[in-house]
Amino acid sequence: MVSESNRKITLKSRPDGYPKPSDFELIEEPIPQPREGEVLIQSHWLSLDPYMRGRMRDAASYAPSVQLGDVMVGGAVGRIIESRTPAFSVGEIVEGRLGWQEYAVSDGRDLRRVDPALGPLSTSLGILGMPGMTAYFGFLDVCEPKPGETVLVSAASGAVGQVVGQIAKIMGCYVVGTAGSQEKIDFIVDELGFDAGINYKTENIAEAIAAACPLGIDVYFDNVGGPVTDAVMENLADFARISVCGQISQYNLAEPEMGPRNTRNLTTHQARMEGFLVFQFANRHEEGRQRIARWIKEGKMKYREDVVEGIENAPAAFIGMMRGENFGKLLIKVSEE
Amino acid sequence: MVSESNRKITLKSRPDGYPKPSDFELIEEPIPQPREGEVLIQSHWLSLDPYMRGRMRDAASYAPSVQLGDVMVGGAVGRIIESRTPAFSVGEIVEGRLGWQEYAVSDGRDLRRVDPALGPLSTSLGILGMPGMTAYFGFLDVCEPKPGETVLVSAASGAVGQVVGQIAKIMGCYVVGTAGSQEKIDFIVDELGFDAGINYKTENIAEAIAAACPLGIDVYFDNVGGPVTDAVMENLADFARISVCGQISQYNLAEPEMGPRNTRNLTTHQARMEGFLVFQFANRHEEGRQRIARWIKEGKMKYREDVVEGIENAPAAFIGMMRGENFGKLLIKVSEE
Repeated sequence: MVSESNRKITLKSRPDGYPKPSDFELIEEPIPQPREGEVLIQSHWLSLDPYMRGRMRDAASYAPSVQLGDVMVGGAVGRIIESRTPAFSVGEIVEGRLGWQEYAVSDGRDLRRVDPALGPLSTSLGILGMPGMTAYFGFLDVCEPKPGETVLVSAASGAVGQVVGQIAKIMGCYVVGTAGSQEKIDFIVDELGFDAGINYKTENIAEAIAAACPLGIDVYFDNVGGPVTDAVMENLADFARISVCGQISQYNLAEPEMGPRNTRNLTTHQARMEGFLVFQFANRHEEGRQRIARWIKEGKMKYREDVVEGIENAPAAFIGMMRGENFGKLLIKVSEE
Repeated sequence: MVSESNRKITLKSRPDGYPKPSDFELIEEPIPQPREGEVLIQSHWLSLDPYMRGRMRDAASYAPSVQLGDVMVGGAVGRIIESRTPAFSVGEIVEGRLGWQEYAVSDGRDLRRVDPALGPLSTSLGILGMPGMTAYFGFLDVCEPKPGETVLVSAASGAVGQVVGQIAKIMGCYVVGTAGSQEKIDFIVDELGFDAGINYKTENIAEAIAAACPLGIDVYFDNVGGPVTDAVMENLADFARISVCGQISQYNLAEPEMGPRNTRNLTTHQARMEGFLVFQFANRHEEGRQRIARWIKEGKMKYREDVVEGIENAPAAFIGMMRGENFGKLLIKVSEE
């Protein structure tokens, strides 16, 4: 069903600290029309991800900021409903940076065809999309884990963390996850098969990590930074590898935070800490996608999505994610498939 | 000339903050006698190095602490003056962990024969010894530099830094060093051929680094940590590599210091920070030694030593090094060769 108008969420003001509903604006406008060489896409699912907080800043980073008044950036999957290029046909399913809106026009250059046989369309934004590839390559290629090693994953029930932990279990690692509620801890241990979980909000994180990882941490996949990472740094095994995927504990601070200087631990443990972006492995994303899809089909891997309906609810859902209120990969269901 | 007694420096008390003269004790005792299977060595040169501060702590690290009353640990080079093993002959020159003393007994297992043809004996503790190998492998293997890249070296006139910077120049990098006096800056630029030097004590380090490295820092060889490293972290080039060799700015703090949380820069720049110990490359030290010796012979590499005479002056020299008062590789001349 095609509506008459396009609803989109724009950036109204740059947040100072945590984003507020008033930093976003819902705008209704006519559905955009594709020009020659372009397609019109109706979005079905929109992905909400922590990196978007960085795009709301007026500071240079690895990608440009969203300008005030512009539609918020975001990956989405949808169906081509009008095509003025031979490159795409009406009815094809595509994923791309379509933004927080119901309809988008594209020249096709940033679109990826989605194979619906691999899994539900929503998974093209989650476990079979950017977060899944982030987990697959950030863990396997950056951390170079070996069977039997102790792996710690922060934000373990999140879109990336849940995939990292399950890959680690598949390859025979001992896996500990941190999360912010007992429900999330139960999920990663009982549902996903993690060996242990630590609630960073209620436990003494340093003591809990030392107790859960008596041989030290060989691999740390970091989604959060801050005090959880501080505690890990005091519990490294020799030759540890840390991949710095995200630092969500730091994204919404009005003032930069100070923390203990602890890089000396890298020297004494001959350890490595490496940042990465998923684009770094773009030429191999298809490898990761096929492997994960097979693990899901074989029943070796599960995924949990947190679905919110309606583009108008994207700002509140995003704000909640910044506070850790989502449980699994956060998605906006924009329209019926 | 062989004296009647052995003078040695023991650890009397564990320093709180910067070491004081009273933390050490000069003890005179009879020259030790080698047992069957052992040799007696007269030390000619003793190396003083920042890592020794770590050995003075009562905390576990990559090597055991010095116990109170024990001779201070340290690498030294000397001559075998008595041998009760067929493995070594009187007159041979050897290097090993002989400690802060004039004479040492060894079972030979930690001794390395020194080839006097490679250079003066003192260099076996400096540019052709542990600090030189630290520079060679920590820079080439950990940092993986490429010609044309911007390299920043902290403590650039020190035992390790001066070697790193010169290797970087040999391989065609743009090289900037930080040091704590104008005299040291002049030395690294005018004598060693660095492209630029920054006096971290008198200049605004963040501005000076940004100005000296307009394309960002591709490789950072870190000997110091603290505010110099903070400034580097804000000026990384994409895919930067940081080797964490030492953190001397932190070694003498009575209380752990806080600093800005800046690991997010590793992610946005897809950068790597790696700690290492020189022992990691022990099987290849001979490669490094031969290469550096050849560069010196070819006139492509220089070295500066800071020589203090007499074992009794080792504590004061070591304390001065902790404050950056040495200029080049700090050595104690223990006896005439």
